[in-house]
Amino acid sequence: MIYMDKLHAIILAGGAGTRFWPLSRESLPKQMLQIAGEDTLLRHTIKRISGIIPPGNIWIVTTEDKAQEIKFHIGALGSIAKEIKIVLEPIGKNTAPAIGLAAIHINSLSSGDSIMLVMPSDHLIPDPENFLSDLKHAVEAAKDGYLVTFGIKPTRPETGYGYIKTEKQSNQKIRVRKVERFVEKPDLNSAESYILEGNYFWNSGIFVWKTSKILSEIELFIPNLYQKLKEIESLIISFPDSLIYRGFNKQNPQILKSIKILYSELESISIDYGVMEKSNDVIMVMASFHWSDLGSFTALDEVIEKDPNGNIFKGNVIDIGSRNSTILSGERLIATIGLNEMVVIDTPDATLITPKAKAQEVRKIVETLKRNGRQEYLFHRIMERPWGKYTIIDQGDGYKIKRILINPKARLSLQIHKKRSEHWIVISGIAKVTKNNETFLVQPNQSTYIPKNTKHRLENPGSQPLQIIEVQNGEYLEEDDIERLEDDYGRTND
Amino acid sequence: MIYMDKLHAIILAGGAGTRFWPLSRESLPKQMLQIAGEDTLLRHTIKRISGIIPPGNIWIVTTEDKAQEIKFHIGALGSIAKEIKIVLEPIGKNTAPAIGLAAIHINSLSSGDSIMLVMPSDHLIPDPENFLSDLKHAVEAAKDGYLVTFGIKPTRPETGYGYIKTEKQSNQKIRVRKVERFVEKPDLNSAESYILEGNYFWNSGIFVWKTSKILSEIELFIPNLYQKLKEIESLIISFPDSLIYRGFNKQNPQILKSIKILYSELESISIDYGVMEKSNDVIMVMASFHWSDLGSFTALDEVIEKDPNGNIFKGNVIDIGSRNSTILSGERLIATIGLNEMVVIDTPDATLITPKAKAQEVRKIVETLKRNGRQEYLFHRIMERPWGKYTIIDQGDGYKIKRILINPKARLSLQIHKKRSEHWIVISGIAKVTKNNETFLVQPNQSTYIPKNTKHRLENPGSQPLQIIEVQNGEYLEEDDIERLEDDYGRTND
Repeated sequence: MIYMDKLHAIILAGGAGTRFWPLSRESLPKQMLQIAGEDTLLRHTIKRISGIIPPGNIWIVTTEDKAQEIKFHIGALGSIAKEIKIVLEPIGKNTAPAIGLAAIHINSLSSGDSIMLVMPSDHLIPDPENFLSDLKHAVEAAKDGYLVTFGIKPTRPETGYGYIKTEKQSNQKIRVRKVERFVEKPDLNSAESYILEGNYFWNSGIFVWKTSKILSEIELFIPNLYQKLKEIESLIISFPDSLIYRGFNKQNPQILKSIKILYSELESISIDYGVMEKSNDVIMVMASFHWSDLGSFTALDEVIEKDPNGNIFKGNVIDIGSRNSTILSGERLIATIGLNEMVVIDTPDATLITPKAKAQEVRKIVETLKRNGRQEYLFHRIMERPWGKYTIIDQGDGYKIKRILINPKARLSLQIHKKRSEHWIVISGIAKVTKNNETFLVQPNQSTYIPKNTKHRLENPGSQPLQIIEVQNGEYLEEDDIERLEDDYGRTND
Repeated sequence: MIYMDKLHAIILAGGAGTRFWPLSRESLPKQMLQIAGEDTLLRHTIKRISGIIPPGNIWIVTTEDKAQEIKFHIGALGSIAKEIKIVLEPIGKNTAPAIGLAAIHINSLSSGDSIMLVMPSDHLIPDPENFLSDLKHAVEAAKDGYLVTFGIKPTRPETGYGYIKTEKQSNQKIRVRKVERFVEKPDLNSAESYILEGNYFWNSGIFVWKTSKILSEIELFIPNLYQKLKEIESLIISFPDSLIYRGFNKQNPQILKSIKILYSELESISIDYGVMEKSNDVIMVMASFHWSDLGSFTALDEVIEKDPNGNIFKGNVIDIGSRNSTILSGERLIATIGLNEMVVIDTPDATLITPKAKAQEVRKIVETLKRNGRQEYLFHRIMERPWGKYTIIDQGDGYKIKRILINPKARLSLQIHKKRSEHWIVISGIAKVTKNNETFLVQPNQSTYIPKNTKHRLENPGSQPLQIIEVQNGEYLEEDDIERLEDDYGRTND
């Protein structure tokens, strides 16, 4: 398949993904988890289309608080990551404004019309080749002026999804179908009848359309949004980088402020409700690919292979006689006896235990944690960084201990902490340490000390991973006590 | 109540307590856990009788591998701990040999006959005043030449206990009753009928008798044991300290070897089966005290107060809608949703999750761990020491990290490690460090380094607790790489 230059991919990556807590956290939402398959859902979403869409035509739409993590995260994709654009929503306003924002950015760049493929960042499609094949049909229909949605043939009377009702087709092989209407999440009786009728499909949230078409439909059905988008467009034509995240963003603050005000006045509305349910030009492509929105831990049953007793075990698990249960652990030992239809999710600082039937209620746990300002809601103990990763292995009054892994040839930023000192003990590999104007090597079983207010940098000059133990001391030990003077990954404190 | 000089307490503390894993470990059995109430079961057992029995008459019988931990553990009782004697069983041979061993030790010390009170170390009696009142009746009966056992009025048709059948009594207030027979663990039907009949009681495993009487009954019913005990007695009359643990044991190795050979030839047999079921002189005191053998986690339901939904929650638990469940956590967050009749036990390195109905099967988990040589079976991450405690917070290839808390004025032994170096970083308090012939203070946020083969000592000279982080490096990082040159707690490597 050859590159489709006029095709742009818009990946919506603003979601918080509370339903996968404690695997997901506010700072590490579901799209950045490796839930099933070999890569994370976000990287998988990019890889799915990177063979046919030039990386410069890939747009990730997210909020400012997630942009840096996403930038690091896609860094693992290699050189194409630099060309992928991250568009910042000034605040989260649901999918219609986010898609509109992407549309005007594409418009501002392109001469002539273009096609947009809009996708969530946190859904699983295990057979991307089928997806690409279906996409061709969708692009053809989009060129003809349709709003195209992908419908998934339902396999159960799911009450958690919206449905798409299409015209009846005597020939089940016809994949492109006229949409009669969008149906909100049904009750169980209705869902059961939909399956029997055969012309109802799950709404995948994946769309294809011409940029001009979606904008004209927004103009028609959400005129206030259209008007604001036009105003924002006039600003970004003059200052095209205003909402593009680059790490070192040196935007015009006045322009950015104006855009933020315009955006903040928008109604929070989904593209489904705002446009798709109202438009007469909606057509559906019946998906030949497999799809899961991974809406809760029970969705893992569809995408991970089970043992003969219906169990999914991952990590350090010892089980006696459980059935139909999902137990995900890491290094810690989880010992289970005779569980039935249960979910157990273990992470270094938190464990979730629930019957499958109650797994959706995990959001109540997350709400409680959020209300109480708990770290277990916000952060993971293991954080990936562009230079490697760190694990918080202990913390208490006046100290925090991290195990830090620095990739070969990588280095942290040149930085200063105002409120903490750091002891570094090298466990394996060789560290190159900058301490004010000095630079020296630290070997395994040696240590060095960085007092507060000291300019310092940690680097792995070798070809093996560098592992150090860092013991921080100080009254204040949060991540925001950092002044970055130089950084290989474009991070600052601005 | 005044001291009863002729009364000796024998506390049997050899059990491994696998049924409370992961709270209990091979190195920290159930008797050393603070399961219910303010102190551990072992210390509680000692306190129960310390008002009426002189500490020099208290004997703890255990195996050599547990003696040091027990010695440290009872240290918290203060000055009386020094007078309590720990008798070492050369190997675990069940209760009859262990009781016999205690009897000959008491004989070898006393002039004239004495009374023995024999108790398990891991049972809970929340009302010790009632126990002491019952004990007076038992001692009177023992003086009359009876073997006295305490029977517990059954509250449910428990199939996990042995029962004692007494003569029928029209007057339910008569507490001292002739025993007709001992009954092995019954099936449910039998257990139900025992409760209806009213003259069946649970066997508490608490006994009172004259030393001369139990030895003559052993002579009668287990003559081989009696003969070996006599041979051992003749050895310990000449070398009374041979089996008494003192930390720095400087026994006569030849004598010790002879005793070990004699003991190893003994049959492993319980006092219940070997003597109580066969003797005609058994009398029962019906207990007025409450009692639980804490045989599994479900026994906590009897001894810990539940919330209105029947739950027991301890530690960092967030729950939504669980019922009749027991969830014990520490610092880590355990989030539970809609559990019913479940047990969740969390510790830093292992979590157990089981329906209450299967809680007894935890021994199968422990067997699996033992078979696989897993640390989670043997050790806790948190270990109490006579000078304070340490927590293993991380370990991996070539390193181990401990958080160490040293009590005010306490110090570790003067020691050498042959295979590891240690970095010490002071978090709070002030450390006095000995490093070969140097001694110096280390303040918070300072560190020092102990290379391998260096004589060193860590001391807290202050009046506040001293907290340090220790990072160990080396190929071999187990606790047995230690040569103690001096120790305040009598520990050596002999």
